[in-house]
Amino acid sequence: MAFGWIDERRRARHRAGLVRTLRPRAPGSPLLDLAGNDYLGLSHHPEVVEGAARAARVWGGGATGSRLVTGTTELHTELERELAAFCGFEAALVFSSGYAANLAAVTALAPHGSLIVSDAGNHASLIDGCRLARGTTQVVAHADPEAVGKALRSHEGPAVAVSDTVFSVDGDAAPLAALAAVCREYGAGLIVDDAHGFGVLGEGGRGAPHAAGLAGAGDVVATLTLSKSLGSQGGAVLGPARVVDHLVDTARTFIFDTGLAPASVGAAFAALRLLRGEPERAARVRAVAGALHAGLTAAGLEAVRPDAAVVSVRAPSPERAVRWAAECRAAGLAVGCFRPPSVPDGVSRLRLTARADLSGEQIERAVRVIGETRP
Amino acid sequence: MAFGWIDERRRARHRAGLVRTLRPRAPGSPLLDLAGNDYLGLSHHPEVVEGAARAARVWGGGATGSRLVTGTTELHTELERELAAFCGFEAALVFSSGYAANLAAVTALAPHGSLIVSDAGNHASLIDGCRLARGTTQVVAHADPEAVGKALRSHEGPAVAVSDTVFSVDGDAAPLAALAAVCREYGAGLIVDDAHGFGVLGEGGRGAPHAAGLAGAGDVVATLTLSKSLGSQGGAVLGPARVVDHLVDTARTFIFDTGLAPASVGAAFAALRLLRGEPERAARVRAVAGALHAGLTAAGLEAVRPDAAVVSVRAPSPERAVRWAAECRAAGLAVGCFRPPSVPDGVSRLRLTARADLSGEQIERAVRVIGETRP
Repeated sequence: MAFGWIDERRRARHRAGLVRTLRPRAPGSPLLDLAGNDYLGLSHHPEVVEGAARAARVWGGGATGSRLVTGTTELHTELERELAAFCGFEAALVFSSGYAANLAAVTALAPHGSLIVSDAGNHASLIDGCRLARGTTQVVAHADPEAVGKALRSHEGPAVAVSDTVFSVDGDAAPLAALAAVCREYGAGLIVDDAHGFGVLGEGGRGAPHAAGLAGAGDVVATLTLSKSLGSQGGAVLGPARVVDHLVDTARTFIFDTGLAPASVGAAFAALRLLRGEPERAARVRAVAGALHAGLTAAGLEAVRPDAAVVSVRAPSPERAVRWAAECRAAGLAVGCFRPPSVPDGVSRLRLTARADLSGEQIERAVRVIGETRP
Repeated sequence: MAFGWIDERRRARHRAGLVRTLRPRAPGSPLLDLAGNDYLGLSHHPEVVEGAARAARVWGGGATGSRLVTGTTELHTELERELAAFCGFEAALVFSSGYAANLAAVTALAPHGSLIVSDAGNHASLIDGCRLARGTTQVVAHADPEAVGKALRSHEGPAVAVSDTVFSVDGDAAPLAALAAVCREYGAGLIVDDAHGFGVLGEGGRGAPHAAGLAGAGDVVATLTLSKSLGSQGGAVLGPARVVDHLVDTARTFIFDTGLAPASVGAAFAALRLLRGEPERAARVRAVAGALHAGLTAAGLEAVRPDAAVVSVRAPSPERAVRWAAECRAAGLAVGCFRPPSVPDGVSRLRLTARADLSGEQIERAVRVIGETRP
């Protein structure tokens, strides 16, 4: 029978504790949320909500077509201009998701005959970009510029290194300056996914490339999401204007996708202006992450020191990670629970996210609940 | 120099007439729009706009995380239930784009060792799904069930055939009933992308699978977009509940992407309710497409008879297609201009889209302008 084979796979996932259940949120949930990626606490900000509503009123419910046909409104172009200016890049291009932006950047910049050097801990969307690209991919050890150099040294022709700036699972930062240096040594480009750095790292949240002095460089391309620090949806590629023009001409997830909905453009735009006007939000989210880590460590839990907003706590097994997260939920705390295949090393963990709008009391409560429910 | 190679490619595209320019729309543009995919004319409907605004107020500017973490609101689940019920399928799963939905459906349903039989005219997102899937892809002649049967006959193990229901470029329909019959003969699944059929074909716009009597079948999976007939953004996969559960557990563009923004869910939901209450919209868009085709043919132009809402008119070359579209625009008419790589056969064309809200006078004007500006 067609699709009959999926039942056995489902049973195997069940035995391994890897079945997923969607858990619909109710409006105004009383849970303390340390699971979402709304790092700056902007997704419910009145100006962000009004930005979405106003854009829908002016431009309609959707972009109505590919960005190349009818899907580019003046609002898209303005957001691109302001994003590029804020982050210090020459140009920006907005996509319907960060996933689409990563597929575009990697595939368009790694043509046939080129080499892609990819960090072993990279996000699924970068990995899929490598798999779709016509170039050849070499996966290297996590956060290891020397390994990147070794891979680049043995290749003739165009090459790029690809890395998250902040890795989603453990929240650790990539050694960006060293990566850029080794790329330059071999004339390679550097593509970095700043999904978890933008809004959190760098001066006023300008992101990890800005913090590393790489913003605006001719050989650096950054991607980011509008769905985390900006509380909306979508993604963007930032880089030299010639690279962005090249994406407009060739990137399949740009050409063959409907443009980002005006409401999401409007929400992201409003959030960007809030961040620009209130740069302390970025420092605050880093302080909250540090406080969470300090509290968890003091409670004897194995938490990774956060380089940005993500705080990761190891769990003994997938089943016990799920039970731990469920007990936190029963005690009023929502935490992420990452299991295979969402963890590169196969180790399940709770994943906590700092938010700029968490109070000291909320941080204490979160640490207490996680400690009391530990397996 | 890193990325230096793109300049020569840009020059080559320039010589071939294949450079793209983004053309930002102003609000309230006076152009008559036959370029967008807002088939039912709903993207500016007050209830759709209010659906977006209300959802943003209740749920915020973004979904804040993966659908598996915090990104599923009750609104997502309700839309999924109503979409499945309307189209006649057991279950539905909403994605941030139709592109993501297609990548998910193909990759999750074509495991290692399986065969994917893919129509030569399929959309880029289905092609990329084939390239990402672990199964082996065999591309077969366009709209040719016999070729599909021949490919399936020689394979042992799981297999799927993959096809658009209505092909985006020429607007022609796939022979769905014959495809389903040949798939059943060999125990293969059938995945169809109904992006251009949903809202247009079938009883009250229930889509091409419904019209072909395939909705709800255990061996048929359909994908659709929320960004065309529903005037919003996003995509969905419809199929048996066990297939949808399998996608929740395994589809990378579901697991590793932020959920669709609440405003887009709200807009799509409002549009779906409008379509259900006003089923004549679907018949109207088909009548408009037929009238456009009749007028163009009477004017001596080479237009493909439309099976849904897309009317395609051949142009002599990429450069002359671009000039033709520009002259239409100067005369107040926006039309799509498809050139390589957006056309599978390398033939450039104008691509017109019917809308349910076009008047007889507007149809006449469009035909007149296209005829008067012909190369």
